[in-house]
Amino acid sequence: MQIGILLFEGFTALDAIGPYQILSSVPGAETVFVAEETGPVLDHVGALSFLATATLTEVTAPDVLVVPGGPGQSAQMTNGPLLDWLRAVDVTSTWTTSVCTGSLLLAAAGLLDGRRATSHWLALDALREYGAEPTGERVVIDGKYVTGAGVSAGIDMALTLAGSLVDDRFAQFVQLGTEYDPQPPYDAGSPEKAPADLVEEMRAAARFTAASGG
Amino acid sequence: MQIGILLFEGFTALDAIGPYQILSSVPGAETVFVAEETGPVLDHVGALSFLATATLTEVTAPDVLVVPGGPGQSAQMTNGPLLDWLRAVDVTSTWTTSVCTGSLLLAAAGLLDGRRATSHWLALDALREYGAEPTGERVVIDGKYVTGAGVSAGIDMALTLAGSLVDDRFAQFVQLGTEYDPQPPYDAGSPEKAPADLVEEMRAAARFTAASGG
Repeated sequence: MQIGILLFEGFTALDAIGPYQILSSVPGAETVFVAEETGPVLDHVGALSFLATATLTEVTAPDVLVVPGGPGQSAQMTNGPLLDWLRAVDVTSTWTTSVCTGSLLLAAAGLLDGRRATSHWLALDALREYGAEPTGERVVIDGKYVTGAGVSAGIDMALTLAGSLVDDRFAQFVQLGTEYDPQPPYDAGSPEKAPADLVEEMRAAARFTAASGG
Repeated sequence: MQIGILLFEGFTALDAIGPYQILSSVPGAETVFVAEETGPVLDHVGALSFLATATLTEVTAPDVLVVPGGPGQSAQMTNGPLLDWLRAVDVTSTWTTSVCTGSLLLAAAGLLDGRRATSHWLALDALREYGAEPTGERVVIDGKYVTGAGVSAGIDMALTLAGSLVDDRFAQFVQLGTEYDPQPPYDAGSPEKAPADLVEEMRAAARFTAASGG
């Protein structure tokens, strides 16, 4: 079983690594990091590059497609060859998945039309503009499309998927192996739980970034 | 403020990326991935390389040191130059931290002698053999030493540290930005919570790996 994880400049590392750490444990899984060109792909922080080991033309039929998000996603929304590739591999994929604003790329490729999906909480409105039906859930499954909310939600998304790919016991085994027994020291991980002024500050920063074309 | 994240062949990607995604957001942070040599460093799965951008000799005084773990850690336990480097940078670090079996490397360098610390649940006995006082807690702070439990615990470790490096509000801001509102689909993330037979299966596999020198 091939798991293809897409990379593009400005991706968010944890978006990709959450699913990677879980799904690469699936028996028989071959995981490939795929990008337009092989070689280093810089993340959005600008301090870390992952090595892409295959080009889009080399990965034609992954069983599981994982599309991370990150600030670099916006520059890909009009990347014709990339969107063509998403549409092409989706034809034969068993599961087409995303984390964070990766769902906007799937939506821009037309793959989420009328489907329930999620994204980073700041991107839910944009997801609707691209034809999906956004929900505030952390993991959304609609047919073979599995979307996760922002950044860290890729872990929950992938554990859910691992249960379907193998079985519940396997997913629990991976959860135990990665000691995924989260104990956040704060309870501010969603706009419903975080202090309201902090949510507004982040919304304002996002509007500024959007307005300035960032 | 420099944040130095150590890489070595066979590290576990999520061990490093959890703290990276949180700590690289600290205002003024410069994050550097450091290894014995610059260039690609392969993770334990064998499907992903991170690019190390600095050598041990180039990073002499990180303010925050992050040591990930992973199956590759055992081969480093007798790596004299690496342990020397850990001891050297620890002299001036503000915080010396680890995730998963990274704490065994800190302990092998003699930095956790008599200190409360944690590690992957399968490695707590080994941690004691190297002179630390293991606890089953997810994040342990003893002086400037902050250790996290297995793999995914690096997120909780780093959020805790972010609260100390900046303040609670900043840590909550990062938690909201990474949408860290965990909702695991199973409740098997610790040996206390997972099915007993599954815990025993993993312990047996670890004993086999240790006995076969893996």
